[in-house]
Amino acid sequence: MTQSRHIFFMALAVVGMTTNLLAEEPLPSWNDSAARRAILEYVKSVTTEGSPGFVPVSERIVTFDNDGTLWCEQPMYVQLAFVLDRVQLLADKHPEWRTEEPFRAVIEKDLPALAKLGAKGLTELTMATHAGMTDDEFENIVTDWIRKARHPKFHRPYTECVYQPMLELLAFLRQHEFKTFIVSGGGIEFMRPWAKEVYGIPPEQVIGSSVKLKYELRDGKPVLVRLAELNFIDDQAGKPVGIRQVIGRRPIMAVGNSDGDYEMLEYVTSGPANGSGLIVHHTDAVREFAYDRQSQFGRLDRALTEATSKGWIVIDMQRDWKVIFPASPPSPK
Amino acid sequence: MTQSRHIFFMALAVVGMTTNLLAEEPLPSWNDSAARRAILEYVKSVTTEGSPGFVPVSERIVTFDNDGTLWCEQPMYVQLAFVLDRVQLLADKHPEWRTEEPFRAVIEKDLPALAKLGAKGLTELTMATHAGMTDDEFENIVTDWIRKARHPKFHRPYTECVYQPMLELLAFLRQHEFKTFIVSGGGIEFMRPWAKEVYGIPPEQVIGSSVKLKYELRDGKPVLVRLAELNFIDDQAGKPVGIRQVIGRRPIMAVGNSDGDYEMLEYVTSGPANGSGLIVHHTDAVREFAYDRQSQFGRLDRALTEATSKGWIVIDMQRDWKVIFPASPPSPK
Repeated sequence: MTQSRHIFFMALAVVGMTTNLLAEEPLPSWNDSAARRAILEYVKSVTTEGSPGFVPVSERIVTFDNDGTLWCEQPMYVQLAFVLDRVQLLADKHPEWRTEEPFRAVIEKDLPALAKLGAKGLTELTMATHAGMTDDEFENIVTDWIRKARHPKFHRPYTECVYQPMLELLAFLRQHEFKTFIVSGGGIEFMRPWAKEVYGIPPEQVIGSSVKLKYELRDGKPVLVRLAELNFIDDQAGKPVGIRQVIGRRPIMAVGNSDGDYEMLEYVTSGPANGSGLIVHHTDAVREFAYDRQSQFGRLDRALTEATSKGWIVIDMQRDWKVIFPASPPSPK
Repeated sequence: MTQSRHIFFMALAVVGMTTNLLAEEPLPSWNDSAARRAILEYVKSVTTEGSPGFVPVSERIVTFDNDGTLWCEQPMYVQLAFVLDRVQLLADKHPEWRTEEPFRAVIEKDLPALAKLGAKGLTELTMATHAGMTDDEFENIVTDWIRKARHPKFHRPYTECVYQPMLELLAFLRQHEFKTFIVSGGGIEFMRPWAKEVYGIPPEQVIGSSVKLKYELRDGKPVLVRLAELNFIDDQAGKPVGIRQVIGRRPIMAVGNSDGDYEMLEYVTSGPANGSGLIVHHTDAVREFAYDRQSQFGRLDRALTEATSKGWIVIDMQRDWKVIFPASPPSPK
């Protein structure tokens, strides 16, 4: 707990939050809506000794999706923006890419072609830009990019396009001795370099998609080399699998925003502990983006249709959240 | 820290330790040997602020091998004893096993044939006994077996054939805000059901070998089914890979006992943090077992030869440990 708090205060400094999260009123950026009340009630029931829903500290596991749940995933996944930037940067070393799809489409910014990239094309782009280097080298690449890149609509670093109400929810749950995990379809090593600073979530509590690694000696020093081969896709039915493989048991709470989170929500809320499921519904075209059933990124269709019957709490971003993003830091870093 | 302590006290109750681990003198079951002094000195250097070797709490990761490092691996791996018992138990349902190797050898207790089982035969036995059921079902099977099974030499549960000095080392490191992980070639779900009670290590801090899992609905309830397909072998060069995939960074301390730990030790002690490597050398034929370069289980050859040049601390079980196992619980459970 002490450690989590310490990390959390570091995160506050970084994202420049001015609200006092330890004030008596929890979740201060949330309107007093049904969603907020349901969250407070659930946390009270699992943390009150003697309550029928009481859950011991060791079992208080909560899993958060990342894209669209903790940070912005429009107009495209942040990692896709990273991939496109990487292709542009590496294009000089790969003259063959000028005529080879899907690289040509990226280099020429052929938006219609890019929009039609399927899983195969995306995987190819990802492998070409995420493999071949060591784990440390990739971490440096991500760290450098995430510091410099800016969101096209909000003109601020992506790490400041995180949802202030969700930062408060993470902190609130940790105050109640939940262990907070990320369970994302995104690349695990694309999140780890900044997840601790921004969300207070250490690397070992990040679960995501990954490439295979190879242990070898380079100049007599042991390194892990990233191979151009998928190891695990942490999406849809892969999420419960990733959770079980890494955490070893069923969480009691899950938070998502798209059909990619359907199975995680189903798994968590069907357990013996009567777990809680939350869905962020992007309804705010002015302050963020409004999208659901038709969206190319973060499509929310089946999970939205079934939310009521499943007892999942739907968070209406426009109605439930007073602010979307943290205040900007007082001085640019 | 509070949680770890709480779990640890539970472990004390279970294994019936009578020593007060929080007494002023750390590692009380260790003789005042070079190994003990080296451990104390290392922990002091990484936890003393201002010391050149100081490591912040968030980076204090230590990884322990399990078989032969935390608990006894002779006369055979505990998990192999489990596999053999499972085959006997399931034999009635599989009449074909009576003539089919390697099952026949197990059923007829054909020791010469069993001794010659290679990786292929062992994998076959493991798949036949570790797959096809749900994760919860397998957990129940392991929990039931580990409670009833007894070590053939020590006539006590395997969970009491754990090394008292290592329980003290785990506790000592946690007192100094290390996060303790198991990184074992053994099956991850064979360890998780009891690792928390016995070692104070929660399921999400256990890394091991695993089978693939499949998410599906059974009677409308989501379950994870264990498939007869290897997912990951967490041994030799697989250990650094497993560490990076799950923990996301390089530990600063690793403890092992066999050549299966060589790469983990090499990885941890070659990092920028000047990590510490420890090897348990089984030298005590009277109180436990004496084996190293020629052993079928837990062979220690290359790592022993190179220990001095690599700066790894070799723990001589006979010389360095006052006691091997915890005292028996006052009353059988």
